[in-house]
Amino acid sequence: MSITYREVKADILRQITQGELAPGSSMPNEVDLAASYGCARATVNRAMRELADDGIIERRRKAGTRVRLNPIRQVRLNIPIVGQEIEELGAAYRYALVHGQAEPAPNWLRARMALKRDDRVLHLTCMHYADGAPYQHEDRWINLGALPEAEQHDFSDIGPNEWLVSTVPFTDAQISFHAVQADATFADYLDCTEGDALFQAERMTWLEGQTITFVQLTYRRGHRLTMQY
Amino acid sequence: MSITYREVKADILRQITQGELAPGSSMPNEVDLAASYGCARATVNRAMRELADDGIIERRRKAGTRVRLNPIRQVRLNIPIVGQEIEELGAAYRYALVHGQAEPAPNWLRARMALKRDDRVLHLTCMHYADGAPYQHEDRWINLGALPEAEQHDFSDIGPNEWLVSTVPFTDAQISFHAVQADATFADYLDCTEGDALFQAERMTWLEGQTITFVQLTYRRGHRLTMQY
Repeated sequence: MSITYREVKADILRQITQGELAPGSSMPNEVDLAASYGCARATVNRAMRELADDGIIERRRKAGTRVRLNPIRQVRLNIPIVGQEIEELGAAYRYALVHGQAEPAPNWLRARMALKRDDRVLHLTCMHYADGAPYQHEDRWINLGALPEAEQHDFSDIGPNEWLVSTVPFTDAQISFHAVQADATFADYLDCTEGDALFQAERMTWLEGQTITFVQLTYRRGHRLTMQY
Repeated sequence: MSITYREVKADILRQITQGELAPGSSMPNEVDLAASYGCARATVNRAMRELADDGIIERRRKAGTRVRLNPIRQVRLNIPIVGQEIEELGAAYRYALVHGQAEPAPNWLRARMALKRDDRVLHLTCMHYADGAPYQHEDRWINLGALPEAEQHDFSDIGPNEWLVSTVPFTDAQISFHAVQADATFADYLDCTEGDALFQAERMTWLEGQTITFVQLTYRRGHRLTMQY
């Protein structure tokens, strides 16, 4: 049984970790590596491609392949739908629509979403509960110029995120994480004290250059977003 | 000139976005796709592999390949060294070591880092400034059982993160983001008001199962961590 690309990758990683291949040093070429591992060049190539994708080595057309001086540490963050997130915690999920209304976009939102003068938005406020306790407060605006069908849709039972994911299957997005102090509204909905530090995510989504939706997701006190890498 | 895997990937994405390939539907098999694009099967295979890695399609051994019902939205987050992060903002970076001392690990840290009873740690407190203004407060503990050379190292000029990246080139890590209220210390160092909501990252790093370092990075008021995807 021949060595797999995963085994080649693991062995090269081990050499880098243990200092046998120093940061900044040149990697042997693929033909020589294939000979030393007794495998096909394609096997080495796949291992090297993954190491490059992981930011461990860098491949330069003329200078050859080197071990990166400062490896790029990349995190892959899955962005789940909140209901799935809660169920993965082993808790029962409940959704509630607090408020939903189609309205002219206020100026601050028009600027932020790059809307046209007369564009209307659907403003939805929702709550997501884990085992009955507040988990996430959602304030969402949907551009009715881009998604007019949202105005007739009933969001009483299924949240707008789930609906959007099945209606607009793929888009560009920008996400930002930051901290906010709880105001009186957040304190009420998230069962915390005014002034508490809360973790908030904001997400803007585009479909082929047109803004679809802007959402502010505010989490219960103490929420942590955790990733392995 | 034959079609590239990137073009195949882009065309399949377009079909998914425009609803020609509906969420949940089966994908044609690779042989048929290769025939319709007039390319090698390996080209289609690479495009499909990337679409699967991106969470757009899912490949099942028996059931074949389908368009995911709920695409996994994945963010790739680069974790830069703070000096690079500040310089990318176009600001001048300055580092200061506030305090550094080797000491027995306190109980809470021993539990958190899974240290042995007598393991000692190097506790470093540092500040990072952007154009002279506080940007990030760093509280770091290094396991001297795993990295004894840290005790003799002088961190006056170069921060421990930079030193660690060049000394321990590859490890596993866990990162978590959350919000904290500024206490008197953070208020002093980060020039904000006690009680302000601050964005904090915590990171634990392992080398082959051994805990190397635990760090709390607390950012100036209003900091946002932003990603495109």
